[in-house]
Amino acid sequence: MKNIAFVTVLFTASIFSFDLFSQSPKLVIHGGAGTIKKEYMTDEQEKEYRSVLEEALNVGYELLELGEDAESAVIAAIMVMENSPLFNAGKGSVLTATGIVEMDAAIMNGKTGQAGAIAGVRRIKNPITAAQKVKDESQHVMMIGNGAEIFAGEKGVELVDPDYFLTDKRKQQLERIKDSEKLELDHSGDRGFIEEFHMDDKKHGTVGAVALDKAGNIVAGTSTGGMTNKKYGRVGDVPIIGSGTFADNASCAVSATGHGEYFIRNVVAYDIAALMLYAGKSLQEAADEVVMKKLVDKGGSGGIIAIDAQGNIAMPFNSEGMYRGFIEKKGAAKTFIFKDE
Amino acid sequence: MKNIAFVTVLFTASIFSFDLFSQSPKLVIHGGAGTIKKEYMTDEQEKEYRSVLEEALNVGYELLELGEDAESAVIAAIMVMENSPLFNAGKGSVLTATGIVEMDAAIMNGKTGQAGAIAGVRRIKNPITAAQKVKDESQHVMMIGNGAEIFAGEKGVELVDPDYFLTDKRKQQLERIKDSEKLELDHSGDRGFIEEFHMDDKKHGTVGAVALDKAGNIVAGTSTGGMTNKKYGRVGDVPIIGSGTFADNASCAVSATGHGEYFIRNVVAYDIAALMLYAGKSLQEAADEVVMKKLVDKGGSGGIIAIDAQGNIAMPFNSEGMYRGFIEKKGAAKTFIFKDE
Repeated sequence: MKNIAFVTVLFTASIFSFDLFSQSPKLVIHGGAGTIKKEYMTDEQEKEYRSVLEEALNVGYELLELGEDAESAVIAAIMVMENSPLFNAGKGSVLTATGIVEMDAAIMNGKTGQAGAIAGVRRIKNPITAAQKVKDESQHVMMIGNGAEIFAGEKGVELVDPDYFLTDKRKQQLERIKDSEKLELDHSGDRGFIEEFHMDDKKHGTVGAVALDKAGNIVAGTSTGGMTNKKYGRVGDVPIIGSGTFADNASCAVSATGHGEYFIRNVVAYDIAALMLYAGKSLQEAADEVVMKKLVDKGGSGGIIAIDAQGNIAMPFNSEGMYRGFIEKKGAAKTFIFKDE
Repeated sequence: MKNIAFVTVLFTASIFSFDLFSQSPKLVIHGGAGTIKKEYMTDEQEKEYRSVLEEALNVGYELLELGEDAESAVIAAIMVMENSPLFNAGKGSVLTATGIVEMDAAIMNGKTGQAGAIAGVRRIKNPITAAQKVKDESQHVMMIGNGAEIFAGEKGVELVDPDYFLTDKRKQQLERIKDSEKLELDHSGDRGFIEEFHMDDKKHGTVGAVALDKAGNIVAGTSTGGMTNKKYGRVGDVPIIGSGTFADNASCAVSATGHGEYFIRNVVAYDIAALMLYAGKSLQEAADEVVMKKLVDKGGSGGIIAIDAQGNIAMPFNSEGMYRGFIEKKGAAKTFIFKDE
C-alpha cells in the first residue's frame, strides 16, 4: 500500500517536473576578508575584482547546472581565483620573509565526510587540486611541505617553477611590509602604500567556495598563500579541518577567511556546524553567533561563507569588507565587496 | 546586602578550610591506544610500561600539589613519556619511510584559550616544549617543518642530532613494516613480529596529558612520532587544534590517540566539548558518544582522555587497549593498559 502511494506520488510529480526531487544548485565564494574599504580602491580595481569573482561563480555554476557534483564546482571556482594574481592564493600568493610562497589548501565533502589538506607547499600551481588528491588518492587527510609536493606530482597535479608566483606586485608588497615592520605603519600619506597595505592585508587573504549540487550534497574548499613576510613555516586555519574548512550534509559546509590563529583556537567552521547539530540553530543564526559574537568578543577579525543541504546560505564577516558572491540562477551571479552592500 | 552575605559565606568557609575554594588537582595521561592485548606482552614489558606511566603521573602531580598550573603538569608528564623509548613520541618516535622521525605536538590552555602546535619536526628533543613556545612566544598557533625547528631553537628549546631518535627497536620495526607492506601481514607465527606489529601499531602511537590545577584551570597536551613508514609529510590529528587536542575551561580538556585521519574528519576533541556546551551532556556522556558511538560507526579506532573544570575525568577507547592512568592523591597513581581493567 505504501509502495503504491509512493509510486503515485512519483508519477504525479513527474508530470510537472523531472527535477522536482532534485535540489536547485547554489554556489557561494569568497576572496578574502579584511580592511577593504571603498576609499582604498579605484573604480578600475573594483571592477577587476568583481570580474574575477563573477567568472569564478559562472564557471562553477555551469558545472552544477550540468549535474556535476558540488566538489567539481568548488574546485573550478577556486581554481579561477587561484589563477588570478588579484587574490592571495595560487598565482597571487603573498611572499614569505624569504621571498617564496608557502601555500595551504583544504577540501571536505559533506556527503562522504572525506577530507584532504596540504600545507606549506611551494610549487603547486593549484593547491586546491592537490588537497583533492590527498582526499581521493591517499589514506591520509593532511600532508605538508616537500612530501605533499612529491605526492601531488606523483598524482599528476601540475607543478610549476617557484618563479611562477613571483609577481612584481607581491615582491614590492614584501619589501614594503618588511619596511613597515621596521617603521611601523607608515602614516606619511603615501596613498599607494596605505592602499596596498590594507588591500592585501597581511593576515586575511584567502579564497574559498561552498556549493550545493542537484543531488543535495554540499562541499567546502579553501586555498591561501598565507601571510606576507611570514616566518617559521606558520600555518593558518585554512588547512585545519574544523577551523577554516568543514562540510557535513547533516549540518553545513563552511569556508573561512580571517585572522587564522583566532579561527583555529575557536574551531570556527565546526563550531557553526555544532550549533546547528546540537543547539538547533539555523545556518544564519549559527554563523552569526560564531562570526559576529564569539569571534568579535575574542578580537578575531574575518568572515565565513556557508551553505546547508537545504540551500540556505550565510556570508557574515566582522571586518570592513569581504570579497564575496553567490549564484543560484544562470547569468545572475551577485558579487559584493564592502559592508552594507 | 549581597556583598555582606558573600563576605559571611567566605568567612564561615575559611573557618573550616583554607582550601575550600581551591580545586583538588588531577592529572590524566595516555600513552597511545591500539591493538594492545595481554597475550602480546610479557610481564616484564607490562611492568616497564606501567613504571613510565606512573613516573609521568607522579612527576606531574607533584607540580600540581605545589600549586603549579595545569600546563606545567601536562608538560612535565608528557616529557617523561617523550624521554622514554617505549612510547611513540620524542625519543621513542617511529621512523618514516626514509628512516627519520617527523614529530607533531600541541598544547592548549583552557583558561586563556591560547594554543600552540608544531608538525613535521625532526630535531626537537621534546616537541611538547616547542608547541608551548609557539603558544607563548609567537603570534601564531601552528608552525611546521624546518621553520618550526628554527623558531624552537631561537627560543632555547633543546635540539638534538637526528641520531638521538634512531633506536635499534625503531630501525628493526621499520624494516619489518616495510617487509609487511610487501608481504601483507605476516601470519607465519613469528610471535616477535606479531607482537611488535601490534604493540607499536602503525597508526596509534601517541602520548598525552590533561590536568586540572588548584586554581580550577584545565589544559590538554599531545605529542607523537606519527606512523611508522609514513611518507609525504603526513600529519595526523595530534597538532590539529579541535581534533587531537583541545581545552576550554567552559567545557573540557581533551587529548586523543588513535587513527588520526578519523579524528581529524570528525573534529573529535571539539565535538566532545560542543556536546557539553550545546547539548548539555556530561563529560562522560559526551566522550562516550563521540568515541564509543560516532567513531565506532565510522570505523575510527582509538581513544581519548578528558577532564573538566569540576574534576570529572573520562578515558573511553574503542580499541583493544590504551596505555592510560590518572592521579588525584599523592602516591596513589593508577595505571591501566588493557580493556576491562
